[in-house]
Amino acid sequence: MNKIKLAVKGLGNLGKFVIEFAEKMPDMECVGVLRRKSSLGAKIYDLRGVPDFDGIESLEEKTGNRPDVIILCNPSRNTPENVSEYLTKGYNTVDSFDIHTDIVTVMDKLQPLAINNGKTSLIGAGWDPGTDSVIRAYLEAMAPTGTTFTNFGRGRSMGHSAAAKAITGVEDAISITIPMGGGRHSRLVYVALKKGEDLRTVTERIKSDNYFSHDPLQVVQVSDCTELDFVADSSHGVLIERIGGAASVSNQSFKFEMRINNPALTAQILLSCARAAVKMPAGVFTIIDIPPIYLLPGDRAELIKRLV
Amino acid sequence: MNKIKLAVKGLGNLGKFVIEFAEKMPDMECVGVLRRKSSLGAKIYDLRGVPDFDGIESLEEKTGNRPDVIILCNPSRNTPENVSEYLTKGYNTVDSFDIHTDIVTVMDKLQPLAINNGKTSLIGAGWDPGTDSVIRAYLEAMAPTGTTFTNFGRGRSMGHSAAAKAITGVEDAISITIPMGGGRHSRLVYVALKKGEDLRTVTERIKSDNYFSHDPLQVVQVSDCTELDFVADSSHGVLIERIGGAASVSNQSFKFEMRINNPALTAQILLSCARAAVKMPAGVFTIIDIPPIYLLPGDRAELIKRLV
Repeated sequence: MNKIKLAVKGLGNLGKFVIEFAEKMPDMECVGVLRRKSSLGAKIYDLRGVPDFDGIESLEEKTGNRPDVIILCNPSRNTPENVSEYLTKGYNTVDSFDIHTDIVTVMDKLQPLAINNGKTSLIGAGWDPGTDSVIRAYLEAMAPTGTTFTNFGRGRSMGHSAAAKAITGVEDAISITIPMGGGRHSRLVYVALKKGEDLRTVTERIKSDNYFSHDPLQVVQVSDCTELDFVADSSHGVLIERIGGAASVSNQSFKFEMRINNPALTAQILLSCARAAVKMPAGVFTIIDIPPIYLLPGDRAELIKRLV
Repeated sequence: MNKIKLAVKGLGNLGKFVIEFAEKMPDMECVGVLRRKSSLGAKIYDLRGVPDFDGIESLEEKTGNRPDVIILCNPSRNTPENVSEYLTKGYNTVDSFDIHTDIVTVMDKLQPLAINNGKTSLIGAGWDPGTDSVIRAYLEAMAPTGTTFTNFGRGRSMGHSAAAKAITGVEDAISITIPMGGGRHSRLVYVALKKGEDLRTVTERIKSDNYFSHDPLQVVQVSDCTELDFVADSSHGVLIERIGGAASVSNQSFKFEMRINNPALTAQILLSCARAAVKMPAGVFTIIDIPPIYLLPGDRAELIKRLV
């Protein structure tokens, strides 16, 4: 069997897990990591023997391997540009782009590139957007009338932490998302302040930021940045609830709950979706467009026997 | 928009819900019910204005409608024969065939018929096999190592009730499945005995039946068949649990739980899958072969905006 050749772009927590987990996948191999030129060879991360390159061209030239899929592990804001580049160069991509409101716009923009180059891009292939989206879709197929709530947390929100860190007067911050039920959340923000700043003023600034203005907020000051480590674990989770029915039948009740290491789960979903990327036709897709069986390795009849 | 034309084969609890729910689907209409000639026009069920016929030929001849999909609501043992007949006659089918161990064999047998007639058959499109199978598939894609347990109940098992009713000396029976954790179950069987039979002997017979011999069993005698009504509700449910991980990461923990009206949920899933049947290529498929978005009505971009 020919293994699916992967390249990984970006080497934060997410990229690191993708490289580690790829080793355990029976049908894949990681042929290279793409990172900034200035980071090449840097020892911050153990690359587990995977060579690193500053571009896809040098990866191909130096290894003689053409990756089947490039897995994007850069921040979401870079994703559209990255996908655009790699589709144009003739590669399939998988990413965990997480800006929900931009997904359809980004897809529409990338679709001609995918079609013209005969390649596939799977977008938003993490857990939310991602596997949570799939759960929400099935629950509507099972009970077409009713309400679904997605309750995130308790866990560290990457987006809200970055937003808090960007506030004037904040040296560093971590924002914890706490579910309040009914798909509502409160935010608990730990901040280390810059010299001369006071907590009350900074709290007001955080409160007026668009990321925080809609939800109950508590801001707690820590004495310095290193102290933030005590809430820097990757625990996260979700509870998706639907109560609904169809016609005369009510009280069909569904819950999907998970407690997970956040970047580790995202990394594994990206890998499973890389498997699907080589099976899908050309085009830009989300996880709800993918037959679930495409996500798993092995023989179709065996999978049906075991899982169906 | 052309509505998807459905025919419903069989008119038990399941068929009745399919007819009722189809009325509420924006993109479907039920054009006829197929039932035994002897039942035609029988008033046991309100057909909600849907005409009934003793065969697909007379449905077409008398209504001028050619159904896009035939939804099978007969007992599972009749499913392979029904699918075979309708594929041969050039119809797509959807069924909730639930004999897990036979699915792949039945699929292999039906596949040439589907291909030769250019039609699609979705098999096992209920909740288990069905949506539970999909959940199990995603959980493996999310955490490739680990253990999954499917805990059924508490609820009335149609299969076990029928098996108990078939035991010598049993007039009628209802078997309740009770989860014990770890995917193990006990059976609580309420029996009305035939005249002259004794509980101890009948209990031994039930215990030695293959349906019951592997699980803890309790048999409770009721005085007559009408008394069984007190446990004849359709409440059921499942708890699917997976704890696992990937490589160095453990304790990724997932739960899917639902509490539902059993035939009502199956009916709604059959309807959602009928939508997919007209979108899939020719062939025999299970629900894990179907892109989840195919199960829902409406515009793709709108679905992605709302659910992804």
